[in-house]
Amino acid sequence: MIELLLVGIGTGNPEHLTFQAVRALNSADLILIPRKGPDKADLAELRRSICAEVVTNPTVRIVEFDVPVRRREDPDYLRGVDDWHDAIAQVWSTRIHAELGSSGIVALLVWGDPALYDSTHRIAARLSPPPRVRAIPGITSIQALCASHAIPLNEINAPFLVTTGRRLRENGWPASVDTLVVMLDGDCTFQYLALPGITIWWGAYLGMPAEKIIAGPLAETGPLIIATRAAERSRHGWIMDIYLLRREQAVGGK
Amino acid sequence: MIELLLVGIGTGNPEHLTFQAVRALNSADLILIPRKGPDKADLAELRRSICAEVVTNPTVRIVEFDVPVRRREDPDYLRGVDDWHDAIAQVWSTRIHAELGSSGIVALLVWGDPALYDSTHRIAARLSPPPRVRAIPGITSIQALCASHAIPLNEINAPFLVTTGRRLRENGWPASVDTLVVMLDGDCTFQYLALPGITIWWGAYLGMPAEKIIAGPLAETGPLIIATRAAERSRHGWIMDIYLLRREQAVGGK
Repeated sequence: MIELLLVGIGTGNPEHLTFQAVRALNSADLILIPRKGPDKADLAELRRSICAEVVTNPTVRIVEFDVPVRRREDPDYLRGVDDWHDAIAQVWSTRIHAELGSSGIVALLVWGDPALYDSTHRIAARLSPPPRVRAIPGITSIQALCASHAIPLNEINAPFLVTTGRRLRENGWPASVDTLVVMLDGDCTFQYLALPGITIWWGAYLGMPAEKIIAGPLAETGPLIIATRAAERSRHGWIMDIYLLRREQAVGGK
Repeated sequence: MIELLLVGIGTGNPEHLTFQAVRALNSADLILIPRKGPDKADLAELRRSICAEVVTNPTVRIVEFDVPVRRREDPDYLRGVDDWHDAIAQVWSTRIHAELGSSGIVALLVWGDPALYDSTHRIAARLSPPPRVRAIPGITSIQALCASHAIPLNEINAPFLVTTGRRLRENGWPASVDTLVVMLDGDCTFQYLALPGITIWWGAYLGMPAEKIIAGPLAETGPLIIATRAAERSRHGWIMDIYLLRREQAVGGK
């Protein structure tokens, strides 16, 4: 039987690693490192360097594989994602079978935490026969954002909503929640919100040497974030960013 | 000047500690360990044992203090919390001044992550003169819950709401969100929700040897969770639990 360890590695700071993650990586027979093309070579390199630093068990085999490209032209977003996950599961299967046959422990280094906006659980569920899956939590970009700004995520006893740029555009800002965390937002959706009374805390490349953070009232700070984001993205070839919005409770409504 | 390190330690599994947390603890002149009375002696003991295990720098002083008791009879919940935070800040000030005078690095071991339903940022903001605050993220019970159940937190590209038992009772289940995480819920508020189409993943003492997890359709599983929670709470003298609710998207509405 195959056991699959989904190991959260945090957001790019090798010191985000937990003892549990290090133990899990060293318990594996095989670590699979995804290559996502030249634009994201930094990310494969980070995984390689984490393995080089913490994998001390010489029997662990480390094998790289090319991640299939998602066909972004599919007008049905969820179907496009579905097909892509099928294709990745196929590649995992092939590599695992070639390296281990039908039994052993396989670890994947998952950016952030395997539970949060990540596909590895869903890809794992496509493997046949089904592996035993164990998840190891890792520091998420939400936590890295709050830590870098030294702010609490929630107000006292208050809720917060974690959403995506797409869903914020579609659903707006729900009435009963004053704190939003927005992920996967390539379009700076904050620029379409009514501005007064909203504060934004933004961060990109959180935990990495390239980390950038900006905070302030949305009205004044939004344009600076849009410009900074565009410049950083073109400089690095890729960007991962996240932001937290908080509105004054008196403002209310959507 | 005082530098205050708010160090997330995860949820009770010493292996939740990150390298960053270990480095932060060893960089401190003073570590303050809160004692919250005999019912929560386990929690002070856990902090002590983490320090015993990872603090290797002999110049770090470890000092315990008694946390003032919150006056729960105040009918104004937020004012009660406010007064309590003032009282804790006073105790911190006294201890820090006695041990370090006006300059040095003080670390506090924060359960979970200092950003999430935690008071340390707000207490730190009351110190005078204001310290420099640095936060070190830690694994939260949300992540430990998802890891123990080996489930994703969110559906693909979908939002989730993190809320408290109190706020779920007051505000109900928002229409545009199908995944809720409920924290700080001593009343098993899930029992007041319309049941069909809801699945619950519950966990208590996550990461600790006493960990208990239960999952299933809410209608059948809810009563089992209520009974288990009561039994465990009386056995340990305290409980910390959390749950995730997901409804079928077809159910919709509130």
